Amino acid sequence: MQTVKELAIKKESYDQKQVKLAGWVRTNRAQKEFGFLNMNDGTTLMNLQVVYEEALENFKDVQKIRVGSSIEVVGTLVLTPNMKQPFEVKATSVVLLGDSPEDFPIQPKRHTREFLREVAHLRPRTNLFNAVFRLRSVAAFSIHKFFQEQGFVYVHTPLITANDGEGAGQMFQVTTLPLEKTPKDEEGNIDYKKDFFARRTNLTVTGQLEAEAYALAFRNVYTFGPTFRAENSNTQRHASEFWMIEPEMAFCDLEGNMAVAEQMVKYVVKDVLNQMPEEIDFFDQFVEKGLRQKLEKLVDSKFYRITHKDAIQVLIDSKKKFENKPEFGQDLATEHEKYLTEEHFKSPVFVTDWPKDIKAFYMRLNDDNQTVAAVDLLVPGSGELIGGSQREERLDYLIKRMDEMGVPKEELDWYVDLRRYGGCVHAGYGMGFERLLMYLSGVENIRDVIPFPRTPKHAEF
Amino acid sequence: MQTVKELAIKKESYDQKQVKLAGWVRTNRAQKEFGFLNMNDGTTLMNLQVVYEEALENFKDVQKIRVGSSIEVVGTLVLTPNMKQPFEVKATSVVLLGDSPEDFPIQPKRHTREFLREVAHLRPRTNLFNAVFRLRSVAAFSIHKFFQEQGFVYVHTPLITANDGEGAGQMFQVTTLPLEKTPKDEEGNIDYKKDFFARRTNLTVTGQLEAEAYALAFRNVYTFGPTFRAENSNTQRHASEFWMIEPEMAFCDLEGNMAVAEQMVKYVVKDVLNQMPEEIDFFDQFVEKGLRQKLEKLVDSKFYRITHKDAIQVLIDSKKKFENKPEFGQDLATEHEKYLTEEHFKSPVFVTDWPKDIKAFYMRLNDDNQTVAAVDLLVPGSGELIGGSQREERLDYLIKRMDEMGVPKEELDWYVDLRRYGGCVHAGYGMGFERLLMYLSGVENIRDVIPFPRTPKHAEF
Repeated sequence: MQTVKELAIKKESYDQKQVKLAGWVRTNRAQKEFGFLNMNDGTTLMNLQVVYEEALENFKDVQKIRVGSSIEVVGTLVLTPNMKQPFEVKATSVVLLGDSPEDFPIQPKRHTREFLREVAHLRPRTNLFNAVFRLRSVAAFSIHKFFQEQGFVYVHTPLITANDGEGAGQMFQVTTLPLEKTPKDEEGNIDYKKDFFARRTNLTVTGQLEAEAYALAFRNVYTFGPTFRAENSNTQRHASEFWMIEPEMAFCDLEGNMAVAEQMVKYVVKDVLNQMPEEIDFFDQFVEKGLRQKLEKLVDSKFYRITHKDAIQVLIDSKKKFENKPEFGQDLATEHEKYLTEEHFKSPVFVTDWPKDIKAFYMRLNDDNQTVAAVDLLVPGSGELIGGSQREERLDYLIKRMDEMGVPKEELDWYVDLRRYGGCVHAGYGMGFERLLMYLSGVENIRDVIPFPRTPKHAEF
Repeated sequence: MQTVKELAIKKESYDQKQVKLAGWVRTNRAQKEFGFLNMNDGTTLMNLQVVYEEALENFKDVQKIRVGSSIEVVGTLVLTPNMKQPFEVKATSVVLLGDSPEDFPIQPKRHTREFLREVAHLRPRTNLFNAVFRLRSVAAFSIHKFFQEQGFVYVHTPLITANDGEGAGQMFQVTTLPLEKTPKDEEGNIDYKKDFFARRTNLTVTGQLEAEAYALAFRNVYTFGPTFRAENSNTQRHASEFWMIEPEMAFCDLEGNMAVAEQMVKYVVKDVLNQMPEEIDFFDQFVEKGLRQKLEKLVDSKFYRITHKDAIQVLIDSKKKFENKPEFGQDLATEHEKYLTEEHFKSPVFVTDWPKDIKAFYMRLNDDNQTVAAVDLLVPGSGELIGGSQREERLDYLIKRMDEMGVPKEELDWYVDLRRYGGCVHAGYGMGFERLLMYLSGVENIRDVIPFPRTPKHAEF
């Protein structure tokens, strides 16, 4: 049996040859003496046109095959250089494998994205989600390729964690205690000794801390796995379960960190442009006009570097009326990010050296005592894509910062060990995988780049 | 700055050249007028010997550098063709970056694996875990390469799930309800409407069901992600959090399923043999004598196929005294698996067509009405590596089986949909990633192939 992708790649050598295919019917235009089945076999975005004629033994049955059915087709491949699709198949046999009743939800008409989320198990059978989730696969592999080619070691950091000092967000609790009747200790508190891990555990919000331990053994490592946020926020950019990539590099400072991030983003964008031109054209046409140009421009652009302080100055100097007044020492609002990347630099930009009070405890304090060696990568159209920092490698500074910020030291003693035993300058960053996919596809809602998204009140499928 | 790996690959071109390196000290043998630092920079298993002499400005300080410290070395690379290591570096400068006090837990002596688990954040700085976790990274990438080269689409199936009918094991509950005071509804039951997802949710035990939905759109897909079991079993082969690979293929039967599994295992073994000969030699020498030969033999061997019934007959005919008497209709015990792979076939073997009563609801019923189209791959030394099946694609059969086995139909209605709309013959399998790593390395305890293992009462780090 062949696949449509195989035929597309070697169509000349299949010209006039017999081929056998299986796939799902997208449309069936039955005429009196012949008909056209459009089928997709999942191996490519392209649908295959199957021409069938009255001579078929089961012609009348084939005419009745409904949208969504699975079929097996045997026939002759014919090149069609003047048509939109470069070849079609003249059927000598069409067999219905699995019927699809008329209530099949994915009919050949425009469906809203909201509706398609309700049938997330069937939506990959549409062109849009065929393209989106193939992109997800290609981009994921591209990220692995980038890091593996550079000698990074892939680390699987734990999902279930007893650390709650990571400070990156609210956490889901993981338990096997019976909620109907939770065991209490003598003081009336929950008796976590009776829980599965004999302590309170949560779903991790980051693999960074564990990745640091591995960077201090393997030099360059990366994680690529799921992370969780129990935040009750219903925005287009937030999900409760999403995938993150977190590289961590020993003997590497903030400059080195930015260099790797820039290389990585360009590598993945270039790879996606090369590997899936049809899907990019599809997104360009139907999702975000100008997407291809945006991506091609990024590959050739220099990513700017600017300190947070200078970025605030740029915003003030712009004399633009922002809803949020730009202020030294404060975070950047979405409108500020937009202005910097889309109007001022017209390019991706690394904003560095952030006020220490709005950043995490593990970021390295700069000599000014006011800022930390943190960096955000902002990109046109999507805002923050990456956040990272040089890590505080100085034991005394780290402990002081943990005390100031009330980070529990006992449970993170192992993390502090990394500064006690052969510590060194090191740095890393985190990229939300879905943010990257939204940037690559133009798709605006994170729910549409995750196969089965989890958001507040939603855990269907 | 160079890495030891870089030098090892291009040592000839670096001969007599100045090099700069950074890494962690494994030993420091200080003599009166010179000394030897053995350092590892994490990029390879090999330690680099650094020779330092009295002429160094800070000679006396360098003599005192302790095991575990991080250092930066500048010096001249010298080829040493007659030594065990093919080159060394004569230092012109050695700088201590991060000290390591004498209580550094990983001293150059034999530590028990049990002790090293207690310092899981430092154990990758030993040779064994350097090799194990580099293997983990190489094998993970190898699996991605295999499937991507074959056009499979990588799917991220959800970790948090409301399905509890998957039947593969006990589950962890995921919640944001306050355990101290769980909200109750009018009938006194937990009011899950108030939980984060407005329903009871758990950590998934498999991505298979969701992968099936994607196979019925993309034809060939695979998952590679974490799965969970809340089973209170303390064995060498069970962890509460582990990674699984679950390919799923449309228009594919049990034969096709086995063909892919066999190709995949051979591909990964071959890749690991090629990519990391030093690590394999290390395992062969220190972990499992004969490992290399075992792996090389597997690549060239034909995987046998035998039905469960015939396998039981082989066991009975063997006249061996088993602790568990082999019986038709019953599961295979570890000793049975051992006999089949290590004594009878002396090779990996697929056992097919298992009694339906000991297998899951979604497996396709054979025409004998007694067995299902299931398959386990047993390998010498490790037992079950892979479990898979052809899935029941017939709507009426599936529903009948769900009823018989008490699988809740409403919450899996979406899964049943896959048989209502364009269903087709499809199959897939699951491989526990850690099982594979144990097979590849000879390491016998699953806790030693997971960076930070989670088992009953253990969620440290």
